Amino acid sequence: MSVTVVGSIAFDAVSTPFGERERMLGGAATHFALAASFFDDVRVVGPVGDDFGDAELAVLATRGTDVADVERVAGGKTFFWKGAYGRDLNSRETLETQLNVFEQFEPKLSAASRASDVLFLANIQPELQLQVLEQMGEARFVALDSMNLWIDIARDALLDVIGRVTCVILNDAELRQLTGKPNVVSAAREVLRYGPSAVVAKQGEYGAVLMTEDDYVALPAYPLETVVDPTGAGDTFAGGFVGYLARHGFEPGTLRQAMAYGTALASFNVEAFGTERVTRLTQVEVDARVAELERITQLKQAVA
Amino acid sequence: MSVTVVGSIAFDAVSTPFGERERMLGGAATHFALAASFFDDVRVVGPVGDDFGDAELAVLATRGTDVADVERVAGGKTFFWKGAYGRDLNSRETLETQLNVFEQFEPKLSAASRASDVLFLANIQPELQLQVLEQMGEARFVALDSMNLWIDIARDALLDVIGRVTCVILNDAELRQLTGKPNVVSAAREVLRYGPSAVVAKQGEYGAVLMTEDDYVALPAYPLETVVDPTGAGDTFAGGFVGYLARHGFEPGTLRQAMAYGTALASFNVEAFGTERVTRLTQVEVDARVAELERITQLKQAVA
Repeated sequence: MSVTVVGSIAFDAVSTPFGERERMLGGAATHFALAASFFDDVRVVGPVGDDFGDAELAVLATRGTDVADVERVAGGKTFFWKGAYGRDLNSRETLETQLNVFEQFEPKLSAASRASDVLFLANIQPELQLQVLEQMGEARFVALDSMNLWIDIARDALLDVIGRVTCVILNDAELRQLTGKPNVVSAAREVLRYGPSAVVAKQGEYGAVLMTEDDYVALPAYPLETVVDPTGAGDTFAGGFVGYLARHGFEPGTLRQAMAYGTALASFNVEAFGTERVTRLTQVEVDARVAELERITQLKQAVA
Repeated sequence: MSVTVVGSIAFDAVSTPFGERERMLGGAATHFALAASFFDDVRVVGPVGDDFGDAELAVLATRGTDVADVERVAGGKTFFWKGAYGRDLNSRETLETQLNVFEQFEPKLSAASRASDVLFLANIQPELQLQVLEQMGEARFVALDSMNLWIDIARDALLDVIGRVTCVILNDAELRQLTGKPNVVSAAREVLRYGPSAVVAKQGEYGAVLMTEDDYVALPAYPLETVVDPTGAGDTFAGGFVGYLARHGFEPGTLRQAMAYGTALASFNVEAFGTERVTRLTQVEVDARVAELERITQLKQAVA
């Protein structure tokens, strides 16, 4: 199988209590691809500007990710986001957003990208997500992310896309906002009624839960004493989760392991700025952290 | 073994999005005892006023809890707390606190209460917690709760008590405030340095984590679509956790099961106002929910 991801490729400027970066590779599609590439062939679809160099493209291509559908817009500038995190890293402020090449972006998927069995619609305008869906072949599994802005100003289009995907991956606050239900369990249940067969609620430092028609899985975050930069954690989780499913299939047992791999990958992502940690991450490290998550969440077994 | 709990017995006035109660039995010691009584003999130490009736005393004595050390203060009024919860039940406002008989409270433990192997110091002034400790015999396991107020105004006394207990049970925000560390994992690690051998971080709807010198356990909350009244959830958790340990011992394996029982009991507590649900709860219901928690947190096994 292969996984196609459509979404932002960006330069980020980030400050956290542990330091700052003026200009580093980021974007939802970037973080997703770096994680999903541990499991399967990944194809990235998204626009960049003239300012996007070969070094950045090489990072994007880590572990064999196909960057043929990364569209370099002549005369354009790459999407730029600037944000600052508060002391406990749970709150962040967006200081600047330059859409740049994203203003005119119209997704164009190559035949190879259309042929993927698995698709991740990263957080972009729901109308663009719809355009991608219409180009796709018969993907077996489509997952979607979104954000508060689209729930606010493009709710109908978003509900339209949600009705056509397999899996919705949102954070707690977004699920509450989307459904109007204050309780995350009932909010996730409501989203299942919109059409998807699985809903993942991302809960940041608290982990994530997954709900399907007849299953519920809850997983804590991997315990870290120091979080350096949370940027991209959600997309890294999605990359691990969706990538694992692409590789191993969509049975209940694989859903649980997929949650664990998403969680483990996200925990590495936040240990350093931007893509720094996941770019040089190894499969052995990921597997070890998944094993540790299994130990941490084991309720019955005594510990060695 | 038996468990002694020292703390508040109260009348609560509570409003939530699901209704309100003008005057219901509450208090930390009450909620703790109702949960711990599933596992072991429980003795409650705390003051009440003339307004505390036989009906309330009977609820406190559910499942055989010993109320001989409930001190009825002649001419006094029972501690009263009034609060209101916001729409998502994660925020609450205290509208009124009447200390009443607690203003003059000096803990006096009977010989039987002093002889308990296990002690829970519910959230009261650290100076009173110290007085209790000084009266106790050789308890094998002492757990402590506290709150932001004491961290603010009685920090030294609180650190003194913490240095003498086995286990600290606080919520995330309290652990952060106590240690000055914004990250809960490092905050819990810091509290271990103060002396206790275990720290539990309560995380409300997200569950709870436990840290010891060489173990870490994370457990999500039991998923509920409707939470009616969160009052007493933390003390109910503590009652299940400490009660289970009193009954089954303090090995790593029992710590994990104790977390699961605390979590299950807390989930029942919040399904109705005050003590309404846990008073009529059965062991079979509790065991079923613990089994469900094991299923929910199982990462490897496929589900039936």
